[in-house]
Amino acid sequence: MNLNEIGARAKKAQVFLAKMNCTQKNELLIKCADDLVKNAAGLIKANDIDMENGRKNNMSQGLLDRLCLTEERISGMAEGLKQLAALPDPVGEVTGMVKRPNGLMIGKKRVPMGVIGIIYEARPNVTADAFGLCFKTSNAVILKGGSDAINSTKAIVDCIRRSLEEASLPVDAVQLITDTNRETTKEFMRLTEYVDLLIPRGGAGLIRTVVENSTIPVIETGTGNCHIFVDESADLDMAADIIINAKTQRVGVCNACESLVVHEKIADKLLPALSAKLREKNVELRADDKAFGYTKDAVHASEEDWGKEYLDYILSIKTVSSVDEAIEHINKYNTGHSEAIVTKDYFNAQKFLEEVDAAAVYANASTRFTDGFEFGLGAEIGISTQKLHARGPMGLEALTTTKYIIYGDGQIRS
Amino acid sequence: MNLNEIGARAKKAQVFLAKMNCTQKNELLIKCADDLVKNAAGLIKANDIDMENGRKNNMSQGLLDRLCLTEERISGMAEGLKQLAALPDPVGEVTGMVKRPNGLMIGKKRVPMGVIGIIYEARPNVTADAFGLCFKTSNAVILKGGSDAINSTKAIVDCIRRSLEEASLPVDAVQLITDTNRETTKEFMRLTEYVDLLIPRGGAGLIRTVVENSTIPVIETGTGNCHIFVDESADLDMAADIIINAKTQRVGVCNACESLVVHEKIADKLLPALSAKLREKNVELRADDKAFGYTKDAVHASEEDWGKEYLDYILSIKTVSSVDEAIEHINKYNTGHSEAIVTKDYFNAQKFLEEVDAAAVYANASTRFTDGFEFGLGAEIGISTQKLHARGPMGLEALTTTKYIIYGDGQIRS
Repeated sequence: MNLNEIGARAKKAQVFLAKMNCTQKNELLIKCADDLVKNAAGLIKANDIDMENGRKNNMSQGLLDRLCLTEERISGMAEGLKQLAALPDPVGEVTGMVKRPNGLMIGKKRVPMGVIGIIYEARPNVTADAFGLCFKTSNAVILKGGSDAINSTKAIVDCIRRSLEEASLPVDAVQLITDTNRETTKEFMRLTEYVDLLIPRGGAGLIRTVVENSTIPVIETGTGNCHIFVDESADLDMAADIIINAKTQRVGVCNACESLVVHEKIADKLLPALSAKLREKNVELRADDKAFGYTKDAVHASEEDWGKEYLDYILSIKTVSSVDEAIEHINKYNTGHSEAIVTKDYFNAQKFLEEVDAAAVYANASTRFTDGFEFGLGAEIGISTQKLHARGPMGLEALTTTKYIIYGDGQIRS
Repeated sequence: MNLNEIGARAKKAQVFLAKMNCTQKNELLIKCADDLVKNAAGLIKANDIDMENGRKNNMSQGLLDRLCLTEERISGMAEGLKQLAALPDPVGEVTGMVKRPNGLMIGKKRVPMGVIGIIYEARPNVTADAFGLCFKTSNAVILKGGSDAINSTKAIVDCIRRSLEEASLPVDAVQLITDTNRETTKEFMRLTEYVDLLIPRGGAGLIRTVVENSTIPVIETGTGNCHIFVDESADLDMAADIIINAKTQRVGVCNACESLVVHEKIADKLLPALSAKLREKNVELRADDKAFGYTKDAVHASEEDWGKEYLDYILSIKTVSSVDEAIEHINKYNTGHSEAIVTKDYFNAQKFLEEVDAAAVYANASTRFTDGFEFGLGAEIGISTQKLHARGPMGLEALTTTKYIIYGDGQIRS
């Protein structure tokens, strides 16, 4: 497998994509959606091989569930592509055009990023999703999916490439690296000549590997050690609702709450009832010494707990004596994802929103809303937890860049 | 030298900086400017040591000139800080706040990047400049200057830290890594726990080293293999003026023209007179076979020339048969900096602006305008030639990021 060839083909295809208008791109997305549904039987057949291998390799039930393709899920993938077709295209917009004193007209034009690499794990549905987002923004995409899903991913990519071919568009708008060798992946992460941006989608381990090894600019996504701070003045019913929602509505996601931070003055009023409700939902509670006495069926938290993203039915509980201590604790242990305060106090709410360093900071709402759809972006390629380029849910615009365009009439610099 | 301690101190100082308002920041910038001028004699004395070492080490005249601090240059540095004080502060602006259907108010707030690392070469003036830009945007900065300028840089940093101390502000708003060991620099590039962004300022070699070794997000700056394409329909006098300006007004800069691309149909009309003028200015001309015959005193260009950023009195000349061939050539060899077309043809101008992949694309103007001041940004930390986060001249906004702030009244996700 020659990665340089793959890169060169992607770059060539992208030149074509950059010239397509939005209507043409939307037509292809709708065709792809229809073709995926038409080919559902074939996709499921390919997926069966991965599922069988997964079972043989003792893949966990959770992972098998993520891996599994059904007719319903294929319809979901198709629906996602159709939703993308309905969104406005960010490419081409010119903002802030000004006339400079020397007469130069200078504006910033939104343009495709170019070639985007996406490295992900055994989730076949990411394939169509990532292609759709990149295609809508006139980017070529090179995919490197997990080896456990290789047959499913290949079948989906082949289906999309057939759709492109039938529409007389460059099939290399999407390419899949089928070689699952680790060295190939490392080489891919250094393909700076061809790849403009690399996005890892998966667990903390995958993301760390990419950040450590890539010389291509990377956007880190996903890790979320999210806190909810219940202030002294909080409406305790509201606090309980928000915490139960953020912890238990879906536990395996990055915007779920992992740690409850409680003002010590209301710990005795909040914790007994709340902890009983959480225990009913099978949430294991890991409390610090002060919280322990008020918490039903808790175990003692260790220092390690404060930095943990459990992605499970576990919640740590930390008491603090002020909003400042809460902010300091959160800024020390968080992963820059989503943080919330529950309070009636105007100044504490503003302080928390101002001083907590994270992609999304909430007053009086569940952290579970950090999501491209909930934020009104219409689509999401991931949630950036880094500060460069894009922070928080990334929609189509995060897959674009800008260039300055300048209209002159002979200006030279003196 | 313990880099983790430096990082931790920077992070702590930044928490303080983030709470400062614009007026307080401006006052400090003006104080720093005044203090630099007051301490000019001391700075020049420190610089004398570097200059003497430079001469001993046979530093080139050009580098010695860059290294040299004079009263006038120190006034220039001070003036730069005062100009920064006069600029609006991008931090704190909230854009696009919307009310979602569930009542959540979601907006994007501009916030400091955090801790910024800057690695540069033997140019002492970068020190005050980088500090000023970072301070104005409430970022702490860790500087790693070139070893050849270490005494000058240290004197400037000490002066700024005294100003901070006298103003009862955290001195660790600026720190200098004085250890010039290569291993220390490598370790610095992996300080992801503390440093949010790394900006190398210097030659292509420095930038490559940082990109290869850094695990901190990097913004690449500066390399410019800039082309000017003279189209068939160009006003040839305008073309000559623009080329002479872009090539010779200042040769050692990244937005200088390195390659002339000429439509073959006008090569015979443009090149004889233009090449004579360029030769008068001592520009060496490296022409392809078609251009060679029309070009005064040219040598034959080799394949290598097309990819070269000379930063010198040298210009390569390439003939093409169409605007498409020009665009293809430029997109193959350019470094994503600044590219220009000279033409009277509406469609070719639009095509060039659309299809050339670079940070700044010009119709009928000199590439020398790619600059933060010329673009109206008021200041510049460098010119980004990458696509992530910032592209083209980077002003204060490039040193900031955003976070979502969300005002709720008890919303939970269903």
